[in-house]
Amino acid sequence: VTDPQGAAAVCIVGLGLMGGSLALALREASGASTQLVAVARRPDVLEAALAAGAIDEGTCDLAEGVAGADTVVLATPVRTILRMLPMVGRYARSGALVLDLGSSKSQICAAMAEMPVGLQPVGGHPMCGKEVAGFAAADATLFRDRPFVLCPLPRTAPEAIERAIRLARDTGARPVILDPAVHDHAVAGISHLPYAAAVALVNCVAAADNPVAQSLASSGFRDTSRLAGSDVEMMLDILLTNRDAVVDWLERYATQLDHLQSAIEAGNEANLRQLLAAARYTRSRLTV
Amino acid sequence: VTDPQGAAAVCIVGLGLMGGSLALALREASGASTQLVAVARRPDVLEAALAAGAIDEGTCDLAEGVAGADTVVLATPVRTILRMLPMVGRYARSGALVLDLGSSKSQICAAMAEMPVGLQPVGGHPMCGKEVAGFAAADATLFRDRPFVLCPLPRTAPEAIERAIRLARDTGARPVILDPAVHDHAVAGISHLPYAAAVALVNCVAAADNPVAQSLASSGFRDTSRLAGSDVEMMLDILLTNRDAVVDWLERYATQLDHLQSAIEAGNEANLRQLLAAARYTRSRLTV
Repeated sequence: VTDPQGAAAVCIVGLGLMGGSLALALREASGASTQLVAVARRPDVLEAALAAGAIDEGTCDLAEGVAGADTVVLATPVRTILRMLPMVGRYARSGALVLDLGSSKSQICAAMAEMPVGLQPVGGHPMCGKEVAGFAAADATLFRDRPFVLCPLPRTAPEAIERAIRLARDTGARPVILDPAVHDHAVAGISHLPYAAAVALVNCVAAADNPVAQSLASSGFRDTSRLAGSDVEMMLDILLTNRDAVVDWLERYATQLDHLQSAIEAGNEANLRQLLAAARYTRSRLTV
Repeated sequence: VTDPQGAAAVCIVGLGLMGGSLALALREASGASTQLVAVARRPDVLEAALAAGAIDEGTCDLAEGVAGADTVVLATPVRTILRMLPMVGRYARSGALVLDLGSSKSQICAAMAEMPVGLQPVGGHPMCGKEVAGFAAADATLFRDRPFVLCPLPRTAPEAIERAIRLARDTGARPVILDPAVHDHAVAGISHLPYAAAVALVNCVAAADNPVAQSLASSGFRDTSRLAGSDVEMMLDILLTNRDAVVDWLERYATQLDHLQSAIEAGNEANLRQLLAAARYTRSRLTV
């Protein structure tokens, strides 16, 4: 449904935090000039999104939702995206941009390479999130000023890449073009490793079964462990589709923890001060 | 300086985040009925505190500040507290309550046991903080609704313990009486370990020297690494005076990280889901 003024039909598959926020952001950016269609499993989520004015149409049927769109955005957990790509390939109209919002990109871009020739696939990953899931947490400003990684395939037409860049900009994000493997290793370090660190921290305190410790937990523990509250199925998919990079970072992390432990055990004050000061300096330059 | 209405003179040694916040909180709670004296190394900090109305008097001389007080609160890094306790013992008036705000308690309480018989020592640790240091960050509400750990010594008179409890309550905190070793092991888990985890995370990303990773860092990395911005000298003292407990928790942490890594490497979905779901459940019950 591309009208004479260039109005576009965007189909968002999945109306959780990311898909819901994308719908709200595109609605704000383009108003009625973009026809927004959503596909979700649960009719009540579609009704909530319709009531919020986030979408124009909703359906539980992937084929129906995808058929009329010139841009399809897959906003589900990574392994659901992998399962849906062949179906999207079957139902999407020729020339459609197929974008996703999954947090690991190598496996998704490999699956996108298998889609019918007429389609224009681009892997995507907006670098933002919350530890709360679902449409109720959706937020039109979620993408604002955040990097939005785009991984075009060798086959993707320049015009389709431009459309993906425009969509990312419409959300208020900064598009960043990256190779899928480069993306996956980078986000394993700054996103998947922090998640694993938070999970291990929480499980460590729980395993100690120390009610005193739990009763004394303060803002430091709260913030360091925040990511452990992330959606389990989403994170499971991310870790399992980005295994090599995550394991590489877990090994680097163990090395750094060993450095700290050695310095503390030995009472090596100079060495310990250096490790703490280096971290403080690096952290102070963080601009997020 | 105890007046007929029971007005008390409190001397706070150290006007950083904790000492400064204590001054502001006691000022709010007791108004002019408490004479607040502060000891600080830097005259400009004393002037700032006087200008803010946080204290009545300031001095750079420990002996002078301590001499007139019936409560002395040491609010410096832990090893400075250890160095100052003998001097406080020399200068404090008989019967004075000597409290500290240090984050490890065993070594401090052992040093307090060596103080002159007439003094009333109580180890203290309010469970709150920020990753910013200094009087400029001081906040009268910092202690509000937070646990305030008190570690009386076997020799401490009940009346002095009551005074410490009252002081903790005056800050808006919830006093909690604990054995120093129990405290130290508990906070090593919920405070010192999270700090070490944050330091290792930041150093890990810095060591990888991956500009892409750093440019993609988002709120997840920011929050998980927040504690790495803590004051280095303060944390150095804490880690070095609580070595055994911190090392014990670092070993527990390494075990939990191993569990995660094994499940990810093996692609053991059921096991991995269990680890992530357990962490999410525990985290959801956190009340901080």
